[in-house]
Amino acid sequence: MTSADRWLLPDGIEEILPPQARQIESLRRQLLDVLDGWGYDVVMPPALEYLDSLLTGVGKDLDLRTFKVTDQLSGRLMGLSADTTPQVARIDAHSFAPEGVGRFCYCRTVFHAKSSSLLASRTPTQIGAELYGEAGIDADVEIISLMVDLLKRAGVRQVHLDLGNVAVFRALADAAQLTDAQQQSLFALLRLKCVSDLDQWAREHIVDPGLASAFAQAFRLQGDLQALTSAIAELSAAVPTAATALQHTLDVAQRLMARFPELPLYFDFTELRGYDYHTGLVFAAYVPGYGDAVMQGGRYDETGAVFGRARPATGFSGDLKVLARFGSASVTCRETVLAPNDHDEQLWQHIQTLREQGKRVLTQLNGDTVAADYQLQKHDGQWQLVKIN
Amino acid sequence: MTSADRWLLPDGIEEILPPQARQIESLRRQLLDVLDGWGYDVVMPPALEYLDSLLTGVGKDLDLRTFKVTDQLSGRLMGLSADTTPQVARIDAHSFAPEGVGRFCYCRTVFHAKSSSLLASRTPTQIGAELYGEAGIDADVEIISLMVDLLKRAGVRQVHLDLGNVAVFRALADAAQLTDAQQQSLFALLRLKCVSDLDQWAREHIVDPGLASAFAQAFRLQGDLQALTSAIAELSAAVPTAATALQHTLDVAQRLMARFPELPLYFDFTELRGYDYHTGLVFAAYVPGYGDAVMQGGRYDETGAVFGRARPATGFSGDLKVLARFGSASVTCRETVLAPNDHDEQLWQHIQTLREQGKRVLTQLNGDTVAADYQLQKHDGQWQLVKIN
Repeated sequence: MTSADRWLLPDGIEEILPPQARQIESLRRQLLDVLDGWGYDVVMPPALEYLDSLLTGVGKDLDLRTFKVTDQLSGRLMGLSADTTPQVARIDAHSFAPEGVGRFCYCRTVFHAKSSSLLASRTPTQIGAELYGEAGIDADVEIISLMVDLLKRAGVRQVHLDLGNVAVFRALADAAQLTDAQQQSLFALLRLKCVSDLDQWAREHIVDPGLASAFAQAFRLQGDLQALTSAIAELSAAVPTAATALQHTLDVAQRLMARFPELPLYFDFTELRGYDYHTGLVFAAYVPGYGDAVMQGGRYDETGAVFGRARPATGFSGDLKVLARFGSASVTCRETVLAPNDHDEQLWQHIQTLREQGKRVLTQLNGDTVAADYQLQKHDGQWQLVKIN
Repeated sequence: MTSADRWLLPDGIEEILPPQARQIESLRRQLLDVLDGWGYDVVMPPALEYLDSLLTGVGKDLDLRTFKVTDQLSGRLMGLSADTTPQVARIDAHSFAPEGVGRFCYCRTVFHAKSSSLLASRTPTQIGAELYGEAGIDADVEIISLMVDLLKRAGVRQVHLDLGNVAVFRALADAAQLTDAQQQSLFALLRLKCVSDLDQWAREHIVDPGLASAFAQAFRLQGDLQALTSAIAELSAAVPTAATALQHTLDVAQRLMARFPELPLYFDFTELRGYDYHTGLVFAAYVPGYGDAVMQGGRYDETGAVFGRARPATGFSGDLKVLARFGSASVTCRETVLAPNDHDEQLWQHIQTLREQGKRVLTQLNGDTVAADYQLQKHDGQWQLVKIN
């Protein structure tokens, strides 16, 4: 191995240098402040914990994405957190367990043994929010509005929002009394998004002609508000529970359109990628020029149950580094002052005062080549700031 | 396993809940702002990377503390970063490589397969600073002053500072022409801090009576300024290079005493624990009631060489969570407003304006039990803040 190879970083793992690191730190603070402004309390789940605790109640996808290590102290397997949501669900159910509604947020590194997509980092800086204890439409509207607000405050432009609802296919599967194995084959095909394969699957598994037509329609359930409205009318007779899930999605969409009239909305009920443990309404924000969602989330009402407290839940997350790439939030830079390397205690006091006032003061060492706005100079026994042109 | 066991966290790994998480986030920002105010640029090295890159140029202690995982993509071993310093050394030498002096800082989770001590977390939030390119006393004074300033800004009281110098025993070892194996046995004994064992070791390995007396004195080299001054006088004849290292330490101490007259200073040249890769002046800050250093660091001038750029280097770090425990920095809490869950678009605009003005506004959902300072109420068609008593 050459020395250059030794410094190569693994695929999908990045090192963030100045000035980009400053931009990301600044964005982190701005977005956590937005989350706090909406009443979401920051939590810091462990980056590493016992595997069975980490993977309780979540999908197999997350298991395959989780790095495993052996704990030298206990001999038990531990995992690196690949997703913060299940850990926050445990905090809500077990370690913090607020009485009423629970609102939590976080921003921290998570680890993916395999990237979730070709574009994605294996060490994303996951920032997100979770809302517990409210099953109704109000929680869906609050959490999606918060996501849209975060993207706006991050300066991400040309966002469009996709809405879906995992409950639609669950309702169809129930109506057709599909076995677990059949459901799994259906959901696997849905992830591949090939309509002809799906139609073929329906011909083999769905006998009832009304249901077969409902499935065929559901496989094509994407488009604008108009497409959604007509689908509700057609599905309500064949599979009323599926129509209810669609209507719920429509209600949320209409509330969002009133709040964000400029936000393009698109419906896609066949999109299931990335929704490992979701149970109802799901949503994702996209921007031009990036194939993955910049933020996404949805309902996961059943997750809390495995932690001993079944609570309605919804939330979303995204990679702060992706938001920094597509956003244009301002970064405040302080004025820089260069101070001579003089062992004058009066100078030291003066420098410390300037720092407390918000200035960035560097003491000039040999070979210091920093570009500064001001220089500290002594005139008539007094240290003074002199502007550098 | 009972369900309670499943939620148990591994030893030395913690979950941080509200309101403590808010306090830690607030402290994180304050301390990174202090570091920025001193001209240190924030960097974000990867939490996970190839093991040979991670462990290049550092001690065996760090190897044993590093969690290892296999990279599914390359088949190569990766390690979880157990210490940020060697990664920043690579940034300075290779990926960023500033022309003049390099000043970097960071705050991020690191991972220890084994705790560095009984008290320490296995996932400390390491915050620290590194200064490259200046070999002289000015760099030592700057970096220690910065550490003291950080502790003061964190509200950590009753700090006392220990100074040492790894170069003293290196000079003695050179003078006695110790083999590598002999040096290793000496340093292993020094870490155990048993003077009688050390004297026994010297009787077996050091023949020259002058050197034997120098070693005997060095084994006891701890105390106040007075002890240091007399040691310099006595060692300067027998091992001049050791006396030079002591004099360097004395010079730094005198500069620090002028800046921080209230700070208790203590010298200990036999303390080598925790100094995996240090080469010269080392330092640590202690507080009453905690057996480990709250922050520590020192010179590691040789580390850069393995990355293709040998630069003088010094730096320090500590666990943000420990600083939060012993500190008393203020946490700003915003005023909380409770808004009714009303589908009024005027209310939505009003709420968003209040949030932009820095208020924390929660929309009341069913079962929301939050304690608020104000309520939003509609009077004469206008939304108004009403103080809650």
